[in-house]
Amino acid sequence: MSIIDDLVTSLTDAVGAAIVVTDPDITAGYRQDWARDPNAGTPLAVVRATSTADVRAVMLWATEHSVPVVPRGAGSGLSGGATAVDGGIVLTTEAMRAVTVDPVTRTAVVQPGLLNVEVKAAAAEHGLWYPPDPSSFEMCSIGGNAATNAGGLCCVKYGVTTDYILGLEVVLADGTVVNLGGPRLKDSAGLSLTKLFVGSEGVLGIITEVTLRLIPAQPPASTVVATFTRLSDATDAILAITRSLRPAMLEFMDSTSINAVEDAMKMGLDRTAAAMLIARSDSPGAHRTEETETMAAACTAAGADEVFVTDDPDEGEAFAAARRFAIPAVERTGSLLLEDVGVPLPALADLVQGIAKIADARGVVVAVIAHAGDGNTHPLIVFDPEDADMEERAHQAFGEIMTLAISLGGTITGEHGVGRLKKAWLPDQVGEDVMELTRRIKHALDPAGILNPGAVL
Amino acid sequence: MSIIDDLVTSLTDAVGAAIVVTDPDITAGYRQDWARDPNAGTPLAVVRATSTADVRAVMLWATEHSVPVVPRGAGSGLSGGATAVDGGIVLTTEAMRAVTVDPVTRTAVVQPGLLNVEVKAAAAEHGLWYPPDPSSFEMCSIGGNAATNAGGLCCVKYGVTTDYILGLEVVLADGTVVNLGGPRLKDSAGLSLTKLFVGSEGVLGIITEVTLRLIPAQPPASTVVATFTRLSDATDAILAITRSLRPAMLEFMDSTSINAVEDAMKMGLDRTAAAMLIARSDSPGAHRTEETETMAAACTAAGADEVFVTDDPDEGEAFAAARRFAIPAVERTGSLLLEDVGVPLPALADLVQGIAKIADARGVVVAVIAHAGDGNTHPLIVFDPEDADMEERAHQAFGEIMTLAISLGGTITGEHGVGRLKKAWLPDQVGEDVMELTRRIKHALDPAGILNPGAVL
Ligand SMILES: Cc1cc2nc3c(=O)[nH]c(=O)nc-3n(C[C@H](O)[C@H](O)[C@H](O)COP(=O)(O)OP(=O)(O)OC[C@H]3O[C@@H](n4cnc5c(N)ncnc54)[C@H](O)[C@@H]3O)c2cc1C
Ligand SMILES: Cc1cc2nc3c(=O)[nH]c(=O)nc-3n(C[C@H](O)[C@H](O)[C@H](O)COP(=O)(O)OP(=O)(O)OC[C@H]3O[C@@H](n4cnc5c(N)ncnc54)[C@H](O)[C@@H]3O)c2cc1C
Repeated sequence: MSIIDDLVTSLTDAVGAAIVVTDPDITAGYRQDWARDPNAGTPLAVVRATSTADVRAVMLWATEHSVPVVPRGAGSGLSGGATAVDGGIVLTTEAMRAVTVDPVTRTAVVQPGLLNVEVKAAAAEHGLWYPPDPSSFEMCSIGGNAATNAGGLCCVKYGVTTDYILGLEVVLADGTVVNLGGPRLKDSAGLSLTKLFVGSEGVLGIITEVTLRLIPAQPPASTVVATFTRLSDATDAILAITRSLRPAMLEFMDSTSINAVEDAMKMGLDRTAAAMLIARSDSPGAHRTEETETMAAACTAAGADEVFVTDDPDEGEAFAAARRFAIPAVERTGSLLLEDVGVPLPALADLVQGIAKIADARGVVVAVIAHAGDGNTHPLIVFDPEDADMEERAHQAFGEIMTLAISLGGTITGEHGVGRLKKAWLPDQVGEDVMELTRRIKHALDPAGILNPGAVL
Repeated sequence: MSIIDDLVTSLTDAVGAAIVVTDPDITAGYRQDWARDPNAGTPLAVVRATSTADVRAVMLWATEHSVPVVPRGAGSGLSGGATAVDGGIVLTTEAMRAVTVDPVTRTAVVQPGLLNVEVKAAAAEHGLWYPPDPSSFEMCSIGGNAATNAGGLCCVKYGVTTDYILGLEVVLADGTVVNLGGPRLKDSAGLSLTKLFVGSEGVLGIITEVTLRLIPAQPPASTVVATFTRLSDATDAILAITRSLRPAMLEFMDSTSINAVEDAMKMGLDRTAAAMLIARSDSPGAHRTEETETMAAACTAAGADEVFVTDDPDEGEAFAAARRFAIPAVERTGSLLLEDVGVPLPALADLVQGIAKIADARGVVVAVIAHAGDGNTHPLIVFDPEDADMEERAHQAFGEIMTLAISLGGTITGEHGVGRLKKAWLPDQVGEDVMELTRRIKHALDPAGILNPGAVL
C-alpha cells in the first residue's frame, strides 16, 4: 500500500468510513471555493462531519499524523480561504445543520453547516430576525459567516456577524473542545475569546456550534433608488445621506454592474446611468417617511437624474435582489478577480476614481459594486481566462487596487477575509508588528500549523 | 543605595523624572481601585504617562528589569483589576486625555485617560453620541472602559463597549507598539485582535489610543417607573417587556437599594416597595408612546402597585440618576463586596430569590440592583468592617452568589471584569480547557508575566 492509502485507512479507522469521501469525482468539488483558485491542491480526503465528536476525531487524527485540515462551510468564500491543500483533509460542516431558537432569551444555537437563509427562517418562525445578510445568504453557512465575520447589506445599520455572536463551541487543533461565551447578553468573564475566533478563517480552530443573538422581526422598509450620470454625484449623495441619518441599507452599483445585471434580469434598470444607489429606511412609523424623504432629497441635491421611492417591500426587494445578483451577473462576462477593499467614507470617491484609473492603465474591465454606507466596495476585475496577457494584467490590477485602498487608510478586505488570495498584501496593511503578534497567537493555538495552512498567514 | 532606590533611579533615567511619582502620600492613592482590596500591595512607583512613547519606555524598562506593571485608568474598577502589586509600577493614563472627533466618519480617536463623560461631551459637540454608559460614567476612563468591556444602562438596546471600538493602539509587554483596526466600519483583515484586547483587563497590553464609533445624537426618551410589592412580579414584568420590544433602558432596584438611595437623595421614592423598575423608550415619534404604553401595561399586568410615565427627559433622568447612585448610596451603610453576576433572562427570578436565601443564611444584607434587561445584576453585600465574623460571612456569601449564577448558566461578571477578586471562580465558570487556552494566549503575548500579574489568571 502507498503512504496515501495507509493514511486514508488510518483516517477511516479513526473517524468512521461513513463520513470519509475519497471518490475523486466528488472530492474535486471540494477543491475550490467561489474564488476558484487555479492553484488549489488535491486533498487526501473530504470528511463530512456530522457532530462535534466527528470534528474532534478528525483533529486528533490530524495532529497525530501532521496532516493539514481545511475547514469548509458552503464554499461560497471569495478569498480562497477554503481552498484545498495537497495531501490535506477538507473538513466540511455541510451535514451539521441543527438549530434551536429560544424566543425568551432571543438566541439561537446553531450547528455551523446551516445556511444563513435557514437561520433567518428559523428565527422568523418566532417573530425574530438574524440581521447579517451577505449577498450570498441563500448559499453560505453560518459557520463560514462566523469564520469570516461576514457582512452584507443591512450591516450599515445593524452591524456585522461578530455583533450577533454570543458564544461558540470550537474544536482546537489538538482536538480539545472549548465552549466560549453563551446565551448571555453581557459576559466579561475572562478574555474575549469568542470574538477572537470570529473572523479567524479556520486558522485557529473549527467552529462546531454558534450561539446567536436575535432581535425582533425586521420592521417593514421603504426603498429609495437613484441613478446618476456622474459617479462623483453618487459618492456625494452617499456622504450626505450617512451624515444625516443611519440608513438600513445603502448600496452602490456602477455602470458595468448595472448593465451586467440588466442583461441577466431584464428588469428595466437605466443602462445609461454611471451609478445607481439603493437605500433603505426601516424606522418605525412616520419616521420612515421622513428618512426616505431626506435620502431622496440628498440624492436630488447631489445631482441624481432620477429618484424613485417605494413603500412596497416587494418592489424594494427587487432592487436589493438586483444588487445581490451583481457578482454572478458580472461573472457571466468573464472570469473574475474579486476585491473587497474598504476605506473611510470620505475617501470613497478617491477609491472609485483610482480604481477606474487602474482599470484604464491595465486595460481590464473593473465593475464596482459597494456596501457604500460603510465604505466597503467590491471591485470585480473581469478577464478572459484564455488570454494569458490579460490575466496577468488583471492580477496586476488586483494588487494595485489593494495598494490604493491601503494608501487611502483603508483595508484590503472589509468582509470576505484574507484567505489565500490576499495574504501577500496583509503585511502592507497591518504592518510587520501586527503580523508578528498574529503569528504568536497562531503558534500558541496551533503549534504544528495544521489548521488551514496557507490562509491568512 | 538599596535595591529599590537603584530601581527607581534606573526607572527615572529611563522614562524621565517628571512622570515618576514615589512620594508615599501620593502613591498610597493609587494602591486600590473602587473595590478597595485590603490586600493591595505597595508599588515601587506610580508613572503618570503623558504619551504612547512614555508607556513604551515604561514597558521596555519593566521588561528589562522584570518589574510588574499594573495599568490604571481612573481607578473606578470594582474587581480589583487595578490593585497595586508589591514592588511593581502603577502606570496611570490619567494625563493622556486628547480627543479628536470626525463627524464625517462618525468616529473619535481618544487617548485612554479621558473620562467616559468627556468622550460623550466631545461627541455631543458634533451632534453625535457615544452610547456605553456605565453608572460611573462621570469618573471612569475610556481606557478602563475598553480594558473591562464596560457596560451600563443603555446597553440593553445599544450594546457594550466592544461594539463601539473600531481600533486600538496597544503597547505590548516588550514595548512593541501595535495599531489594530482603525476608522473603518468594516474590516476583516487578519485576526480580530482589536476585539481580543477589549476586555483583557490589562493582562495582554496597555491601551494607549482608542478609535470609537459614534452614532447620531441620542433621541429624546420617555421613562416608565413602576413599583412592586412582590419581587417576582417585577421579574415577570421584565420578561414581559423584553419579550415584546427592545427598551432603551430597563433597570431594577430592590427595597434595600431604594431605601439607601432615598436616605441619600430624598427624592420621594416609595420606601415600602419590594422592587422598582425604570424603563426607557427612545424610539422615534409615535412609536415611543406605543413602547412606553406597552411597557407600562406589562408592569400593570404583572401586578405593579404604581406605574408612572413621563416624557420629560429631566424627570426621567432623575430616576436614572437615582439608580446610578445606588452603589455609593448603599456604600454609606457599610463596607461592600460588589457582585456583577449575570444570567440568561428567564433565570433572573431564580437568581434574585437565591441571593435572598444566601443573604438570610449568612446573616448579611445584600442589596440588589440590576441592568435587568440583559440579566446583569449587582448584588451588593454589606458588612461591618469592624466585625470580623460578619466580614467572613460576607465573603462566603460573595462566593456562593457566584456559584449560584454559574449553576443557573450565568456568568460571574457581566461587565466589571474578573480582576483579582473574582478570579478564583473563573475556572468554575469557563472550565479548565478555556483557562488553558487563556494561559496560552497570555504566555504568547506576555511570556515574562509582567502585565498586571494576579489579575484574571
Ligand atoms: C455571489 C456572492 C456574494 C457574496 N456576498 C457577500 C457579502 O455581501 N458579504 C460577505 O461578507 N460575504 C459575501 N460573500 C462571500 C461568502 O459568501 C462569505 O465569506 C461567507 O461567509 C462564506 O461562508 P461559507 O459557508 O461559504 O464558507 P466557506 O467558503 O466554506 O469558508 C470560508 C472561510 O471560513 C472557514 N470556515 C468555514 N467554516 C468554518 C468552520 N465551521 N470553522 C472554522 N472555519 C470555517 C474556511 O476555512 C474559509 O477560510 C459572497 C459570495 C458570493 C459567491
Ligand atoms: C459607582 C460605580 C458604578 C459603576 N457602574 C458600572 C456600570 O454600570 N457598568 C460597568 O461596566 N462598570 C461600572 N463600574 C465599574 C467601573 O467604573 C468600570 O469597570 C470602568 O470601566 C473602569 O474604568 P477605570 O478607568 O476606572 O479603570 P480602572 O479601575 O483604573 O481599571 C480597570 C481595569 O482596566 C485596566 N486598565 C485601565 N486602563 C487601562 C489601559 N489603558 N490599558 C490596559 N488596561 C487598562 C486595569 O488594569 C484594570 O484591570 C462602576 C463603578 C462604580 C464605582
